[in-house]
Amino acid sequence: MSLLVVGTMAFDALETPFGKVDRVIGGSATYVAWSASYFTQPIRQVSIIGGDFPTTEIDALKKRGVTFEGVEVVKEGKSFFWSGRYHMDMNTRDSLITELNVLADFNPQLPESYQDCEFLMLGNLVPAIQMNVINQLRKRPKLIVLDTMNFWMETAMDDLKKAIGMVDVLLVNDSEARQLTGEYSLPKAAMKIQEMGPKFLIIKKGEHGALLFHDRSVFYAPALPLDEVFDPTGAGDTFAGGFMGHLAKTKDISFENMKTAIIYGSAMASFCVEKFGPQRLQELSEQDIQERMQSFVDLVNFDIDLVG
Amino acid sequence: MSLLVVGTMAFDALETPFGKVDRVIGGSATYVAWSASYFTQPIRQVSIIGGDFPTTEIDALKKRGVTFEGVEVVKEGKSFFWSGRYHMDMNTRDSLITELNVLADFNPQLPESYQDCEFLMLGNLVPAIQMNVINQLRKRPKLIVLDTMNFWMETAMDDLKKAIGMVDVLLVNDSEARQLTGEYSLPKAAMKIQEMGPKFLIIKKGEHGALLFHDRSVFYAPALPLDEVFDPTGAGDTFAGGFMGHLAKTKDISFENMKTAIIYGSAMASFCVEKFGPQRLQELSEQDIQERMQSFVDLVNFDIDLVG
Repeated sequence: MSLLVVGTMAFDALETPFGKVDRVIGGSATYVAWSASYFTQPIRQVSIIGGDFPTTEIDALKKRGVTFEGVEVVKEGKSFFWSGRYHMDMNTRDSLITELNVLADFNPQLPESYQDCEFLMLGNLVPAIQMNVINQLRKRPKLIVLDTMNFWMETAMDDLKKAIGMVDVLLVNDSEARQLTGEYSLPKAAMKIQEMGPKFLIIKKGEHGALLFHDRSVFYAPALPLDEVFDPTGAGDTFAGGFMGHLAKTKDISFENMKTAIIYGSAMASFCVEKFGPQRLQELSEQDIQERMQSFVDLVNFDIDLVG
Repeated sequence: MSLLVVGTMAFDALETPFGKVDRVIGGSATYVAWSASYFTQPIRQVSIIGGDFPTTEIDALKKRGVTFEGVEVVKEGKSFFWSGRYHMDMNTRDSLITELNVLADFNPQLPESYQDCEFLMLGNLVPAIQMNVINQLRKRPKLIVLDTMNFWMETAMDDLKKAIGMVDVLLVNDSEARQLTGEYSLPKAAMKIQEMGPKFLIIKKGEHGALLFHDRSVFYAPALPLDEVFDPTGAGDTFAGGFMGHLAKTKDISFENMKTAIIYGSAMASFCVEKFGPQRLQELSEQDIQERMQSFVDLVNFDIDLVG
């Protein structure tokens, strides 16, 4: 009866055209959990951290209904660290430093209390670990969503294809969908990916929105044009968190409800980029979210009378 | 009581990953007229052609309600010729040959019968010529739309700014909006452009759709994800033709109706790219257009109940 989230919890150092932070909380599971917590609780977190991960951040997440039974703490170890610099267009970035630290030995063991999970969000990780988590669940969740990236296509394609074959929804960006299938046309790439296993495909296009494919149907969710994109780090994970949070809350995994879930994901992502790290996600109200959703409705709404 | 279209009528040689044509009808005014003719007639065409422009093409346009009184025919001259090659992603292209021919001496004189125009579409041309046409009209049209491109920003920025200051709607792509204003954020660019004169700004983003800005309001029109983009030539002009055609038909220039007009423009553009040149635009039925519009409704439609 809950959402299970697997991913990294980390420190990031970020440089954008708007500023610089040396050490801010990051990691895919951190963003997913913060975002999803506005829709559903509890959230069963699976990750690994070092003794350096701040207690204040853990407590803040616990207050949002995030359980830490599945988060391994390596007291003498250091948390995963990533440092990146964004270019002026905010769509491209250079990785400056990647220190795996405790993540190098990540081998998640699901606590018994996590076996009740109905929704499983596999954040971007080694495909073998993503499969390992699926295999530990005695009862298949109602919905499994897998996020991945081009790095695994280049280094672990066989494993990645196996993992993709085990899930219901694949989450990638447009260039990754093309790389995975060898098809430039996104509708064609979507057909190929559905043949690999997932019945649903979400293609994230950053400032250009997101596409949801299912059978021959397609849904286009816009991104809100923003005055300022302060820091895009975590936007994709925040999107996934809002998407999964809405589905877990409503327990409805129809194509129609996934459309709404994608708009919630897009709304959450539009908050995420307004400040460095997950900061903006830690201070939202219900009303903030409802107002942002209204902006999305206004953004795409048009009147038309079509002759039947 | 009519739509006035100013632009080029030309020959194109095109090379795409799907094939090659040595000589096909092209030009901005050709695409605009074909597209708009499904919505409104007559269309007052202003252009210049050589004696080599095929009578069959002229007759086909005349059958669609396009009047040629404003099209200068230079019997001994050759029509404007452009040759281009598209890259695999279809979003970028190289110009291989540009022969201005009769276009070099284009100095349009509006026939008296054109003075009744209510809607003026200024296709991409030398800004001085665009201004010249506006100045020849004794009564200001209900709506003036100007299309332009980065080339004029680099070679005739002063004139271009003057021309932009005289129109109601500016039509550019995202990189041109950024180049024109020095703002990376599109909402900020939109504010600056509105300060330059136009109350409306349409930003074309190709496969990523289009944005309409007015005051602080924004509307996002998606592009239909297509299995094949055969030839993108003329898609922007076809979009403009559908947009203007719907407005001229309904005579309603409100922000709300412009949203619908943009969806019509997007639908027409989605046909244009299916075959080389304007070929696909010459064979559409009312039903084709209605069905395509339904695809756009389905593409963006989602259900949501918002509190408050």
